[in-house]
Amino acid sequence: AHLAVLAGDGIGPEVTAQAVRVLRAVAEAYGHIFELEPALVGGAAIDATGAPLPPETLALCQRADAVLFGAIGGPRWGPSDKVRPEQGLLALRKGLGLFANLRPVTVNPRLAAASPLKPELLAGVDLVVVRELTGGLYFGEKRRDAASAFDACVYTVPEIERVVRVAARLAQRRKKRLTSVDKANVLETSRLWRETAERVVRTEFPDVALEHQLVDSCAMLLVTRPAAFDVIVTENMFGDILTDEASVLAGSIGLLPSASLGEGPRGLYEPIHGSAPDIAGKGIANPYGTILSAAMLLRLSLGLAPEAAVVEAAVADALARGVLTADLTRERPVGTEEAGTAVIH
Amino acid sequence: AHLAVLAGDGIGPEVTAQAVRVLRAVAEAYGHIFELEPALVGGAAIDATGAPLPPETLALCQRADAVLFGAIGGPRWGPSDKVRPEQGLLALRKGLGLFANLRPVTVNPRLAAASPLKPELLAGVDLVVVRELTGGLYFGEKRRDAASAFDACVYTVPEIERVVRVAARLAQRRKKRLTSVDKANVLETSRLWRETAERVVRTEFPDVALEHQLVDSCAMLLVTRPAAFDVIVTENMFGDILTDEASVLAGSIGLLPSASLGEGPRGLYEPIHGSAPDIAGKGIANPYGTILSAAMLLRLSLGLAPEAAVVEAAVADALARGVLTADLTRERPVGTEEAGTAVIH
Ligand SMILES: CC(C)[C@H](C(=O)O)[C@@H](O)C(=O)O
Ligand SMILES: CC(C)[C@H](C(=O)O)[C@@H](O)C(=O)O
Repeated sequence: AHLAVLAGDGIGPEVTAQAVRVLRAVAEAYGHIFELEPALVGGAAIDATGAPLPPETLALCQRADAVLFGAIGGPRWGPSDKVRPEQGLLALRKGLGLFANLRPVTVNPRLAAASPLKPELLAGVDLVVVRELTGGLYFGEKRRDAASAFDACVYTVPEIERVVRVAARLAQRRKKRLTSVDKANVLETSRLWRETAERVVRTEFPDVALEHQLVDSCAMLLVTRPAAFDVIVTENMFGDILTDEASVLAGSIGLLPSASLGEGPRGLYEPIHGSAPDIAGKGIANPYGTILSAAMLLRLSLGLAPEAAVVEAAVADALARGVLTADLTRERPVGTEEAGTAVIH
Repeated sequence: AHLAVLAGDGIGPEVTAQAVRVLRAVAEAYGHIFELEPALVGGAAIDATGAPLPPETLALCQRADAVLFGAIGGPRWGPSDKVRPEQGLLALRKGLGLFANLRPVTVNPRLAAASPLKPELLAGVDLVVVRELTGGLYFGEKRRDAASAFDACVYTVPEIERVVRVAARLAQRRKKRLTSVDKANVLETSRLWRETAERVVRTEFPDVALEHQLVDSCAMLLVTRPAAFDVIVTENMFGDILTDEASVLAGSIGLLPSASLGEGPRGLYEPIHGSAPDIAGKGIANPYGTILSAAMLLRLSLGLAPEAAVVEAAVADALARGVLTADLTRERPVGTEEAGTAVIH
């Protein structure tokens, strides 16, 4: 298999390096050949080429079977700059047609101490947020004049249908419960979202129980009864906010993987944390989220479910043995590389 | 003073009745004359008149010194209906020019048990979210055709300036720390928001420390280190989500008040909870959020700070004495009226 490796900025290179070690170990143990090809993206690409997504990088990703992505951004590139690291990630999502972003959240009981929530609320948390990733406010027309700014939020029926299908299919393989999140009491796009979700699930997935939640109410429920959710599907902006919120349940955002998928098996896999410039280069970042993203890559893009399960079990085992990075413990934390080594062994 | 009382739907009438009792008790004890005039809004107004905000109701509110508002909405009025209860509240906010929504969140130590967060994270939580209330996606142009839907998000410089000023003035009277929340790495409106907040605070409020947070990151921080916030200012949609999320810190959304203000002293005061149709009519709803909203009304619209403080102390005292409604305790909860009576005594 041919894999593009886009390490990016900040702690991106450090955590990606450990996931690459794990992928190499899997290849060796199971007799696979993974051709891992690095490329520039984000701030690193801006510095080297002037563009956050150089054409060679996009071309490589389009040829590859999957993309392993680190993180992008940092204080050197400001939000008001004309060229910004995030544009690279957004262009990549759009360029590869990755419209469905899967963010699973489970809570390792060993880490309940690191979670801000009371342990009794965390028991049984096992949810996946499916976030629409190539529509909505993110990709709508933007305008600016001296006295005002404008962002358009647009959703088409097919855009909603395809991501709802991904979520409903996932729910079928899980607890068959799907929560669609919108703001239908205010937004026209949300009313279309709700009607479309309703129709797709009722007609194509009659065995899936669908409920609708308003985004404000969902933001409460994620904290007050997170174990009640199975699969959540929502639009791009709401998904951005709710997945970061949900990530705190696990005890650290550093633990959580994500997969971005399109129509075919090609996908992009990245931890949900950012580039954490404050700890970059110190060798203390948590690599588990990126390693678990590599496991999702094995399962979803390469069809290697057993190998994925072995990697996931190895991470769970490292956590259970107390191999914890600084975001997870104050007592003798391990470094990024040591955590990677623990998973490989 | 002349007060409009818009009880609305669901538990709205029950909780409003208790706040009215408290206002009458304040009037009697301090020798004020409060003329309390009820009017229809929301679903109740739709059923009676066909419109969620009858012209008489708007006219009354425009004449009044302040508006006490209960809650609106319910299963009888669907999100896809042409006429919806929420339209009444949105039209009222717009019609009265209430562009700044203040939502304070503090945690009563007595109620830490009811909060989903670990007690050590709750110590010292004392924040106010100032949400922009008459702009953004809520009031932008909306369109729909057979295959797509559209919502416009627009912000003008004066719209951002005035709400940032409200927040910065509030911060000056508190810990002088202001967090402005946006999604400047993606949205044009957010870049304008950030630049404008930066300019207004630097030039007009040099004693206020301003920081910027991305909305996704803020959604995490509200749960992982809520005590670090003082005043938060953000746009309408983000504020809707973040205030509901922040409300869980207090242990119950039923406890939290809000004030919506414009240029003058007139304001609208409502609990942040909804109409809770599932418990409506049972006499078990928590009236403290509405009573605390009435206290904000006394302070902010009528200039009666001492009276407001007495009401707030009476609520704190009732909580301390264990006068808890069903959302706050499982052991012998009190009803709505009993809680109101406890505050009055
Ligand atoms: C970097 C940023 C543009 C991105 C987003 O908002 O989608 C990030 O927050 C994420 O969630 O992957
Ligand atoms: C009822 C609804 C329109 C309203 C809003 O979204 O503003 C409510 O959620 C609130 O926060 O006051």
